[in-house]
Amino acid sequence: MKHSFKNDYSELCHPQLLAALQKASNEQNAGYGLDKHSDSAKKLIKEKLESGDCDIHFVTGGTQANASVISHILRPYEAVLSCSTGHINVHETGAIEATGHKVYTVPGVDGKLTPKDIESALKYHQDEHMVKIGMVYISQSTEIGTVYSEAELKTLYDFCKENDLYFYIDGARLSSGLAASDVEFNRLKDLCDVMYIGGTKIGMLSGEAIVIFHNQLKPFFRYHIKNKGAMLAKGYVVGIQFEAAFENDLYFKMGQHENELARYLSDELKKLSIPLLSESPTNQIFPIFSKEQVEKLQQLYAFEIWELVEDKIAIRFVTSWSTTKEVCVELIEDIKALIQ
Amino acid sequence: MKHSFKNDYSELCHPQLLAALQKASNEQNAGYGLDKHSDSAKKLIKEKLESGDCDIHFVTGGTQANASVISHILRPYEAVLSCSTGHINVHETGAIEATGHKVYTVPGVDGKLTPKDIESALKYHQDEHMVKIGMVYISQSTEIGTVYSEAELKTLYDFCKENDLYFYIDGARLSSGLAASDVEFNRLKDLCDVMYIGGTKIGMLSGEAIVIFHNQLKPFFRYHIKNKGAMLAKGYVVGIQFEAAFENDLYFKMGQHENELARYLSDELKKLSIPLLSESPTNQIFPIFSKEQVEKLQQLYAFEIWELVEDKIAIRFVTSWSTTKEVCVELIEDIKALIQ
Amino acid sequence: MKHSFKNDYSELCHPQLLAALQKASNEQNAGYGLDKHSDSAKKLIKEKLESGDCDIHFVTGGTQANASVISHILRPYEAVLSCSTGHINVHETGAIEATGHKVYTVPGVDGKLTPKDIESALKYHQDEHMVKIGMVYISQSTEIGTVYSEAELKTLYDFCKENDLYFYIDGARLSSGLAASDVEFNRLKDLCDVMYIGGTKIGMLSGEAIVIFHNQLKPFFRYHIKNKGAMLAKGYVVGIQFEAAFENDLYFKMGQHENELARYLSDELKKLSIPLLSESPTNQIFPIFSKEQVEKLQQLYAFEIWELVEDKIAIRFVTSWSTTKEVCVELIEDIKALIQ
Amino acid sequence: MKHSFKNDYSELCHPQLLAALQKASNEQNAGYGLDKHSDSAKKLIKEKLESGDCDIHFVTGGTQANASVISHILRPYEAVLSCSTGHINVHETGAIEATGHKVYTVPGVDGKLTPKDIESALKYHQDEHMVKIGMVYISQSTEIGTVYSEAELKTLYDFCKENDLYFYIDGARLSSGLAASDVEFNRLKDLCDVMYIGGTKIGMLSGEAIVIFHNQLKPFFRYHIKNKGAMLAKGYVVGIQFEAAFENDLYFKMGQHENELARYLSDELKKLSIPLLSESPTNQIFPIFSKEQVEKLQQLYAFEIWELVEDKIAIRFVTSWSTTKEVCVELIEDIKALIQ
Repeated sequence: MKHSFKNDYSELCHPQLLAALQKASNEQNAGYGLDKHSDSAKKLIKEKLESGDCDIHFVTGGTQANASVISHILRPYEAVLSCSTGHINVHETGAIEATGHKVYTVPGVDGKLTPKDIESALKYHQDEHMVKIGMVYISQSTEIGTVYSEAELKTLYDFCKENDLYFYIDGARLSSGLAASDVEFNRLKDLCDVMYIGGTKIGMLSGEAIVIFHNQLKPFFRYHIKNKGAMLAKGYVVGIQFEAAFENDLYFKMGQHENELARYLSDELKKLSIPLLSESPTNQIFPIFSKEQVEKLQQLYAFEIWELVEDKIAIRFVTSWSTTKEVCVELIEDIKALIQ
Repeated sequence: MKHSFKNDYSELCHPQLLAALQKASNEQNAGYGLDKHSDSAKKLIKEKLESGDCDIHFVTGGTQANASVISHILRPYEAVLSCSTGHINVHETGAIEATGHKVYTVPGVDGKLTPKDIESALKYHQDEHMVKIGMVYISQSTEIGTVYSEAELKTLYDFCKENDLYFYIDGARLSSGLAASDVEFNRLKDLCDVMYIGGTKIGMLSGEAIVIFHNQLKPFFRYHIKNKGAMLAKGYVVGIQFEAAFENDLYFKMGQHENELARYLSDELKKLSIPLLSESPTNQIFPIFSKEQVEKLQQLYAFEIWELVEDKIAIRFVTSWSTTKEVCVELIEDIKALIQ
Repeated sequence: MKHSFKNDYSELCHPQLLAALQKASNEQNAGYGLDKHSDSAKKLIKEKLESGDCDIHFVTGGTQANASVISHILRPYEAVLSCSTGHINVHETGAIEATGHKVYTVPGVDGKLTPKDIESALKYHQDEHMVKIGMVYISQSTEIGTVYSEAELKTLYDFCKENDLYFYIDGARLSSGLAASDVEFNRLKDLCDVMYIGGTKIGMLSGEAIVIFHNQLKPFFRYHIKNKGAMLAKGYVVGIQFEAAFENDLYFKMGQHENELARYLSDELKKLSIPLLSESPTNQIFPIFSKEQVEKLQQLYAFEIWELVEDKIAIRFVTSWSTTKEVCVELIEDIKALIQ
Repeated sequence: MKHSFKNDYSELCHPQLLAALQKASNEQNAGYGLDKHSDSAKKLIKEKLESGDCDIHFVTGGTQANASVISHILRPYEAVLSCSTGHINVHETGAIEATGHKVYTVPGVDGKLTPKDIESALKYHQDEHMVKIGMVYISQSTEIGTVYSEAELKTLYDFCKENDLYFYIDGARLSSGLAASDVEFNRLKDLCDVMYIGGTKIGMLSGEAIVIFHNQLKPFFRYHIKNKGAMLAKGYVVGIQFEAAFENDLYFKMGQHENELARYLSDELKKLSIPLLSESPTNQIFPIFSKEQVEKLQQLYAFEIWELVEDKIAIRFVTSWSTTKEVCVELIEDIKALIQ
């Protein structure tokens, strides 16, 4: 097989991050994230966020981050509101429910929530015989590659504040999401209560940085992540990677790189009159091929089968921090050969 | 400060493991532990275990491993039996209880359980108004550095089998525990139902290998670790490390190394007539100093304050895979100077 | 206000049940459901079920019964499949999720599931990144007053057995559901794995009888209900009521009575050309009135506002074991006056 | 068998409470505790408490009350501190842990906690690697029949307030506990943050009244008990009983009655030189007999075997609201015959 476009976590680690780890390999560091690299990484992130007083915690894995944050925010009888396509609803094997909470879903549009969705959910839940909606969960970029604009996030966040809801952004693909939208990193502090900055899907061995902006959510979060099995003995392993990723804007450049290659692919596919399931500005694109074409393509490349579209099949190509222009050009050439 | 003897997870990663990661850095690997390195690592571990049909799963972190295994084994009304010094009882911030289960404790002796302890627990729990003891948890080596002999493990395991209890070994420090006891690695398949082989505390960036011997515990464990937030997208990061650690018996040599240096320290301390809190054959030793001596030592070295012993203080020195003979010799010299 | 048609739990207790309690008031009975009345009640229920070897447990409250049964059946990573209108999904304030399990919903038809619904749910959940569907939940009668026929139940149950799913019937309104369908009580043992016979909504002070047919679900259920806070010290209070309710078929007669009065109401409403939201053969009917009519009716009677139907309002009338023909006649007279 | 002294929930219901139920049997009442009887009962209890602004909620069963209150108070990483003899630790089949929380225990003295116990627990739990003690649980009277004085409760409560701990009193046997101590009912509002007034063990069919004094614990508790399966559809069944029990001080008189008979028994036993395991001023007493005497007594009376005391056996006699002087006199006569 020539290459896998299956996901953005097939490749180990960005060379600069691996170099940073290598460099620290003769050090002794304090455990549980209380080390100098984690401190330095937090400082760098805060500078980029222009938010001096947020709290930052490193964990590994998006499900872990989501389950830790959501179960920290909610009271036992409260539910989290999510788009039905939300990762917490579909692809976490009930990890949120395992902490005791309903994931209440609304259909949304293009994988995105609107204030109207939240409003209808609030109206529907009127008394103590139903769960209380306690927070809203979104992903930037979304599970289907779309992004929220700053105005959209602002509207959602304002709506949440007016309705006593916490607002949480799952940033598993935040780097790509920022690069594809008008949302500046330093605006996020005014656009949500808590978020996580995804590392695993953008060139780290693993690691996500949970950022807590809302003061009421800060106390005792270290207890909470330990209770959820999410506190790493060698927290500095994640700290070192975030330090390196935020030292030179590498974190942001990787997402730009992904999106550029994805745009190249979608542009070329359009030239070839291959339909796309959606207009995704991020690193996931969804071309539609015939069954035969898909089978031939599978002999050369790995990718996800997404869904049936009438008698055809939408597949998913994901570009990563590690994907090269060359392999994308080759893919297009192979597709050209395929469709002739 | 000259050196930290605080724990065995202060140093990043054994050079051979880091080299293995480096070597794989240009590959694309399948996600979620379904990659060739994880397969190869499992094969190597099974060969060493001489157990062809056990199931192996990689996670990161001991609390995560313990919570995943225990909540997989127990029914909602069941409890896990542990020594009161057990890690799950003391140092996991209620992570086991967070999955819904009581940790029922007995005092034990030297951090170890006996069949008598289990028997008394079973006798005490007679009907449905009390929890049902569903499994027994031990650590090898224990939280205070002691080890079970093969005969002791066999007796415990037989007792468990006669009483329909699952028997689980927490191997956070298994390498050191094996090196200090007469238990051979390939005997473990007949000495427990499930265990985990600790990596974080023996030279890995992080990573633990859960090994399931009992057939009834095998099905659907991948669902379970995903549900508990313990399934890694980049499972191969752990797979690569275990592959390297088991290729050349590195895993076992590291524990031997730790124990040798710890023995050197305890032998020298005895020569200096410095009392030890316990006879620990593993990589944790507990010398007793006066308050003044401890304070002076703290200016040169980092270590844990363990407990008060009358008007003196027991401290803990931990040797790691990375500790050198030189630093141990220097420590002894400094102690000699101190006590004159 | 003349009368409340709001629900079927507004009236304390059927006189025969209260008399049975009165009669036992000078006795001493064993605690926790291990008394002679509970034994006798179980015997009577088993005779009616023609099932000698089912296990029966008394609890109080449908949410308690549902949460106890579902969390007993499912493994941590498993979900229960329900119609989106299912009580466990809508009206239990997340009680099922509080035990750690997702309630996965499909729309269904008329509040009822079909094998196609289950099949599509199973197809959708393919691997360990999604919950595993472990059981199917239905209600007889349903939350919107409809009933399953014996053939429908048989088809569902067979489908579940072929697909290794447990099948559970919530019988909060079983008496009314049986009276309105062709399902005989003694057929239920072959139509599900576990069910509960609702008492609270059919003339008991409170009390539901969980009936476990499937052998694998029987062991340790008493531990489980104690763990869930559902074991009553004075279990005999429920036992006495079920004993009295099953001594003379009272349990079944009450449902017939409810349904007859509901049918009288719906027949009369149809004569008056008042539309009904659905064809409900049970004790809940849903007539549609104008906003003004509803307001006038509210001055005389209590009832639930169900939903908007264009510019009109569907309301819910519930008849109970205690409702009299007289009050129904009066209601119809008042409606006649109202619509003139 | 002549009589059971096994517990205080062997008899159905005090005649006055049953009469009150009978009287309400022709009414229609609002569901879920929002009825006039529950309102009236709350008003009466508040008057007796001289606390106008506490919140009162009715549930059925002590385990349900305990699990509901404790899981409402604690954050996920917090534990409840209890005496090791505490009901939540021993006899609730892990119901508290099922809500996710550790029950941390200290030995206590005579079934009672002291500030020193709490202090040592707080000292032991120093950082995020251990649970955080979030609340203190005691029982009045205790599980072994002892009582706290007002001064003792005051000291405990003050200590809790100084240390940011919630203080909760399990009043399963509050009536007996108050009658045996110097604690006045109207003082309780200044002696704890939340408590429950037990009904099941003092003459009700079932029913406990959770009283929340602390303002921060009041919001959304109705959601919480629904989430925990503890909200009764026919809440008025409990409301009616508490209304009747508090209308004429019946609630308090029943405890006095129990204690008087228990004191009669212990006085007579002392006269007969039969040793008592403890000095219990409440309705549980623990005489010590030889094995032969116990066996003979078992032919006449039912009672619990409590524990072995050297070669003898301590048994438990419980007097209830329903126990008569006659049956106690007869018991003493039978014991006299036995020991001759």
